[in-house]
Amino acid sequence: MPPGLFPEEPSETRIEILKATYSALCEHGYADLTIERIGQHFPKSTSLVYHHYEGKDELLLDFLSYLLEDAEENLGTDAAANAHERLQIIFDQVFTQEKSSEEIAFQQAMAWMRAQATTDEEYRHHFTQHDRFFRDQLADIIRDGIEEGEFKEVDPEQMGIALHTILSGTMAQQVTSDVDLSTLRAEAEAYVEARLLAEGR
Amino acid sequence: MPPGLFPEEPSETRIEILKATYSALCEHGYADLTIERIGQHFPKSTSLVYHHYEGKDELLLDFLSYLLEDAEENLGTDAAANAHERLQIIFDQVFTQEKSSEEIAFQQAMAWMRAQATTDEEYRHHFTQHDRFFRDQLADIIRDGIEEGEFKEVDPEQMGIALHTILSGTMAQQVTSDVDLSTLRAEAEAYVEARLLAEGR
Repeated sequence: MPPGLFPEEPSETRIEILKATYSALCEHGYADLTIERIGQHFPKSTSLVYHHYEGKDELLLDFLSYLLEDAEENLGTDAAANAHERLQIIFDQVFTQEKSSEEIAFQQAMAWMRAQATTDEEYRHHFTQHDRFFRDQLADIIRDGIEEGEFKEVDPEQMGIALHTILSGTMAQQVTSDVDLSTLRAEAEAYVEARLLAEGR
Repeated sequence: MPPGLFPEEPSETRIEILKATYSALCEHGYADLTIERIGQHFPKSTSLVYHHYEGKDELLLDFLSYLLEDAEENLGTDAAANAHERLQIIFDQVFTQEKSSEEIAFQQAMAWMRAQATTDEEYRHHFTQHDRFFRDQLADIIRDGIEEGEFKEVDPEQMGIALHTILSGTMAQQVTSDVDLSTLRAEAEAYVEARLLAEGR
């Protein structure tokens, strides 16, 4: 579980349920997730879960909202580093083969929930907000780098969308096919170099 | 249905079944697909489908193999154009908002089947071959461009992997969130420009 994502001993029932959802999702995956299985990770009665949520999808959509709220509150705290270093920190997180089995299980579950968004408007609405947030994060870093004279003058939003596409495409490939992440990272670096750092700026 | 993907009147039962699978997948999506529903698009008896395939996943894996074999046989026929034009042709296909509802339905079904690859080794094996083929196609175009003196000297395989990640990430986003494809294309062009065409080559 990402450190700090959930309190160790949540005082709110909702947070307790969402924490149990995280554990159940990593253990069973999206397709085999049931409220009963979430209940097995929940210290109180499973009936309390039914009291809060009408079903699995309502719960999962609230779970996804919680993750996004957490990211909105806690990302960007490495603003002390310069823009290029901040991109490197994100690349370090995405292009690593050394993920725990729990991280991989969670990434697999996210791939299923994204597939759900192909036919379910509420999931699509979530992933639209999700993608927008991460694109904006990347655009902010690029904008800072330009303002600090570190990067060439590109359109930060435009490049944020493409960088986000590479990163989300990488995470999708990592859990669905064999891909050489170090080669992919080398090219992502070369892209950043060519667009943001190359001579002639 | 992409023109030429299936013969108008297939003479082989396997091809008839796969053609019916394409239609049923576009109509019902992956999650709601059943052999019975495939049978409704199949001019012969549904029992013949069961005779050929043990179940939905065996049939779909054969369907995916057929698509890949078709791509292997028929892609790259635009080799008459120069390398940069060949990239543009691929960009035209991927970054278009003007897809038919059938094309979108098929792209949605592909997103589901890719999610299936997170937990099913046979699907993963397929998407590994699928991704490798499209990466190699892109690498071949880049290699040709370098040999013809049109592109700068980059590592064609490395850039092929990243370009494929942008294209597959774009198609995934198109069916799961709101994304501005024209902005994404503009940045893909800028990436190609900066890495392959910029001054100083």
